[in-house]
Amino acid sequence: MTKHVVVIGGGIGGLATAYNLKKISKDIRITLISDRPYFGFTPAYPHLAMGWRRFEDITVPLGPVLSRAGVEFINERAERIDPDLCKVWTSSGREIGYDYLVIATGPKLVFEAEGMEENSASICTAEHAAATRDRFEALCRDPGPVVVGAIPGVSCFGPAYEFALMVHHELVKRGLRRRVSITYVTSEPYLGHLGLGGIGTSRRLMEDLFAEKDIRYVTNVKVKAVERERVVYEDLEGNTRDLPSKFTMLMPKFAGPEVVLSAGSKVAHPKNGMVIVNKCFQNPSYGNVYGVGVVAFIPPVDQTPVPTGTPKTGQMIEGMARAAAFNIVADIKGLKERYAPTLAALCIADMGDEGIGFLANPVIPPRIWVKSRKGRWVHWAKTAFERYFLWKVKRGNIYPSFEEFLVEKILRMKAVEPCDSCEGSPT
Amino acid sequence: MTKHVVVIGGGIGGLATAYNLKKISKDIRITLISDRPYFGFTPAYPHLAMGWRRFEDITVPLGPVLSRAGVEFINERAERIDPDLCKVWTSSGREIGYDYLVIATGPKLVFEAEGMEENSASICTAEHAAATRDRFEALCRDPGPVVVGAIPGVSCFGPAYEFALMVHHELVKRGLRRRVSITYVTSEPYLGHLGLGGIGTSRRLMEDLFAEKDIRYVTNVKVKAVERERVVYEDLEGNTRDLPSKFTMLMPKFAGPEVVLSAGSKVAHPKNGMVIVNKCFQNPSYGNVYGVGVVAFIPPVDQTPVPTGTPKTGQMIEGMARAAAFNIVADIKGLKERYAPTLAALCIADMGDEGIGFLANPVIPPRIWVKSRKGRWVHWAKTAFERYFLWKVKRGNIYPSFEEFLVEKILRMKAVEPCDSCEGSPT
Amino acid sequence: MTKHVVVIGGGIGGLATAYNLKKISKDIRITLISDRPYFGFTPAYPHLAMGWRRFEDITVPLGPVLSRAGVEFINERAERIDPDLCKVWTSSGREIGYDYLVIATGPKLVFEAEGMEENSASICTAEHAAATRDRFEALCRDPGPVVVGAIPGVSCFGPAYEFALMVHHELVKRGLRRRVSITYVTSEPYLGHLGLGGIGTSRRLMEDLFAEKDIRYVTNVKVKAVERERVVYEDLEGNTRDLPSKFTMLMPKFAGPEVVLSAGSKVAHPKNGMVIVNKCFQNPSYGNVYGVGVVAFIPPVDQTPVPTGTPKTGQMIEGMARAAAFNIVADIKGLKERYAPTLAALCIADMGDEGIGFLANPVIPPRIWVKSRKGRWVHWAKTAFERYFLWKVKRGNIYPSFEEFLVEKILRMKAVEPCDSCEGSPT
Repeated sequence: MTKHVVVIGGGIGGLATAYNLKKISKDIRITLISDRPYFGFTPAYPHLAMGWRRFEDITVPLGPVLSRAGVEFINERAERIDPDLCKVWTSSGREIGYDYLVIATGPKLVFEAEGMEENSASICTAEHAAATRDRFEALCRDPGPVVVGAIPGVSCFGPAYEFALMVHHELVKRGLRRRVSITYVTSEPYLGHLGLGGIGTSRRLMEDLFAEKDIRYVTNVKVKAVERERVVYEDLEGNTRDLPSKFTMLMPKFAGPEVVLSAGSKVAHPKNGMVIVNKCFQNPSYGNVYGVGVVAFIPPVDQTPVPTGTPKTGQMIEGMARAAAFNIVADIKGLKERYAPTLAALCIADMGDEGIGFLANPVIPPRIWVKSRKGRWVHWAKTAFERYFLWKVKRGNIYPSFEEFLVEKILRMKAVEPCDSCEGSPT
Repeated sequence: MTKHVVVIGGGIGGLATAYNLKKISKDIRITLISDRPYFGFTPAYPHLAMGWRRFEDITVPLGPVLSRAGVEFINERAERIDPDLCKVWTSSGREIGYDYLVIATGPKLVFEAEGMEENSASICTAEHAAATRDRFEALCRDPGPVVVGAIPGVSCFGPAYEFALMVHHELVKRGLRRRVSITYVTSEPYLGHLGLGGIGTSRRLMEDLFAEKDIRYVTNVKVKAVERERVVYEDLEGNTRDLPSKFTMLMPKFAGPEVVLSAGSKVAHPKNGMVIVNKCFQNPSYGNVYGVGVVAFIPPVDQTPVPTGTPKTGQMIEGMARAAAFNIVADIKGLKERYAPTLAALCIADMGDEGIGFLANPVIPPRIWVKSRKGRWVHWAKTAFERYFLWKVKRGNIYPSFEEFLVEKILRMKAVEPCDSCEGSPT
Repeated sequence: MTKHVVVIGGGIGGLATAYNLKKISKDIRITLISDRPYFGFTPAYPHLAMGWRRFEDITVPLGPVLSRAGVEFINERAERIDPDLCKVWTSSGREIGYDYLVIATGPKLVFEAEGMEENSASICTAEHAAATRDRFEALCRDPGPVVVGAIPGVSCFGPAYEFALMVHHELVKRGLRRRVSITYVTSEPYLGHLGLGGIGTSRRLMEDLFAEKDIRYVTNVKVKAVERERVVYEDLEGNTRDLPSKFTMLMPKFAGPEVVLSAGSKVAHPKNGMVIVNKCFQNPSYGNVYGVGVVAFIPPVDQTPVPTGTPKTGQMIEGMARAAAFNIVADIKGLKERYAPTLAALCIADMGDEGIGFLANPVIPPRIWVKSRKGRWVHWAKTAFERYFLWKVKRGNIYPSFEEFLVEKILRMKAVEPCDSCEGSPT
């Protein structure tokens, strides 16, 4: 009998899981639930905010591509999950039964600092990025200090670095840099920590980069409040300080959305409501429930004075999606083999004209190796990757054989590996 | 009626103002007052101290060049200014009236630490540099520890770094380095701060350079006393420590000389007697008085635990001179346009065989960009620049059109820019 | 009358002294006493522990080469020295009179931390290295955390760095790195200190290298105990902490062996029983006794919060041996000239595929210059040097003329230099 897999979420994680499932096994019915009618290439949202991309450049309507791929698409919000009954309810009250459930909703954004939701720009959704573009244009009309950074508990620091560098580049281009100071304020204990205790020489690289571009920084602090023209933070000694700011972009914390909480405490992690998963990204209590992408719970790698979380990059998410697909198909076939993502990752920060890239295998220590590269070609590589990824989304194949071949043979990295014992958290 | 501009000072600032004025407008009478009968290329004074240049290599007698340029030269000390009467008195009692006054005296040297005047070498004047050469030869005859650095309140750190590196180079050449330890002792909070919070990666670059050349350093301290064979300093915790030294060269503080103080408290800044100026280097109280060069008051860029000041490099001074000349001519013509120097700057430290250069646009943050280069060619570039500058001094044209073209087109730097609002201090 | 020189020790120091003496003067009788029947190339012991070399690759039996060189060989332990009677007794009770005595025994290893002798691997002797190989194979069968480093008072840090990097390389090669964390724990105040206050930019270089290879580190601590699966250390604030470890390799302290102590307090330094020597490596009390190699006492270069000592590299030891030979021959000839080693040194850390080398002239500050190089060719250069050195040992000539020529002309380094005044300790 054909099994029914329900995927909640139409981002990198959800789409990659659906495409991988379709590719591996023809005999599966797949339904994808997403309230957003389009796939958005998240890594390009900062570019949207700078006006370097248009909305239509970096999004793909989900309807046509999913229908072509043979995936049913329900363009509604998933509102409730009952993992005992194996059912999902959507915003319209529709009830959908499943054999397997993949939760790939992405995060709920938690703008925890006081006044942050109103006064801080955001690049976490396409809509936020579009609004940020307006704020940035306003800054350019009336220049003043800029603050970019991350509040306590943030796990995703990369875009904050990238955005600070992009703002610098755009202001130089417009001849306004002279009138704008840029300060990076973060919960990381040092520059380049990235929630990972650094990646190779990332500390030195980011310190040098910020020094060359005259971006000042304040590390190891808790941003407490974002006001219209001021960012208030507290240092480790408990002193409250502030920075003037006419344009603020602080990364929010990520948490599990309400639909995960509705699945109960065996699915939603008590710490932040993300999906509890084992090394194979399967829920330990409900073997037919998977968590994929930012919504999967990975414990912090490094204990930091101000709390930080572990980032999940696009490539890590692709690995999770691939492992989930492999594991579901193996389970359907009654096989015992299970797969875990290697969590190797390539992270690129685009600075407008040049880029800086980190290739870590794996992201979470102990690492086998780390490489970093900087240059104009890195900027072009990121742009090329964006076009390639969107092409894959439209084509309905997220991991073409030639990509697999190149990644394994040249980079000697694998997306997934057989897993002997799935128990324990993914680290 | 032909206006009379009086320039006090025959260094880079004074000479550049006079030459610029002559170039822009033929219809101005210019008088230059200087007690020194020659122009000296200050950046080469360390070379004089090392015996790498002779006095005549880096000086130009002022009489002939000024007479050829059509500038009257009074080889006397300017002793008193009355900005209300628009008059200057010289050491011989001569009274000179002016329509515009440009104060470009250079600094009064303040050897503030106890015993510093007798026991510390200096490279701030050609005479000091010549005496320092004798001290250095004595060191070579009887080698022992060397201390180079800067006392609290110093604004000009570059020559201290350069001198430490030169001493290293010369001692290696003479086969004496093995018997001489070199220690850099400074009021800067860290190596490469330079009174500017660093220039790009200057901290890392200087730390690496000193490490490679085995120059030890002590930062964030107040030198209290210079004895014949010892330098005494106090750290931030108030502990008094000392370093043995057979040859000491510490940069002194700079202040405004007596002639500025004689102009009263609307001209002389209460902090250090330097000339109070606005962004266009015009005195806010007396619109016909300008301050150019080291004697112009620029507030500290960075609050440091031990006080430091903002350096004024040769290129910054050229910009001030150019802005002053443009503003005086605009005022004479009754035009409203005013110019401010961009304060972009190229600073090169020559180490004898190779050099390290910083190009900052502008010097004072927020900066648009910063570049740094190191190598043998930088040493040669500095030597070439010295010859070129002295040629310009002799030729009477301080900013030839082709130089302007090259600087603006290739480096995309401007010496001066139109200023909308001259109010406020130059930062 | 032919003078009799007795050399205790058959390592780099003892062998180089004997060979140098034979080369300089035919008319000397030389006896070498060593309980070890072979010469071992100490710098390759880490390679032995990794299984990259066999015992026979890096050792040379002493009997044949010494007999060919015309040196008498007594394969016994030297047990007692009486410097007043000018006699040495061996383990068999044999009594040997000497005109000159060269003590080049190498160090006694002091595994001072509790449980260190049983639970820490060692690479200080060929036998230890062979045992370490077994321990390492056990780790590979059952992977877990690795701790490498140095206890307080260690003077020889280089091999610890090299070993940490080798373990990383070998684990990557075997596909096990992912399951093994590597932590470097040291008494040095910072990474790359090396007991020398750093060599050039060694701090930055080692920090970058460890960051790239994901080797974590703990500096400025005292290792107190090595347990079977744990390393316990104390930080500067007196807090006791520990690290899990399945494989521990900590460098021991070096001290003078019993035979030096038997020579009395004018020969054995009160601090650690090493041989008291002047700048020419002659004992100040007994002019016919010399200390060469690790057993010669050199005071610490740098006062560190946790005690560290001054390393003695192979090239430094070759210099000492050469100076001792020159001085003995000069003394025999009744000449006043004396020689001191320059203590210039090349140190290379081999990481398996690439190497990092430091060339310091001299090792002990103030230094004339320092160079560092990294790359694949450095790995090959070290391998080539090993083959070359073993060839020299077999050939009986430790400093061929072409080597002397190359070192002096190309590197501008000398092994020894004339010494005006031998008094004082060698620094």
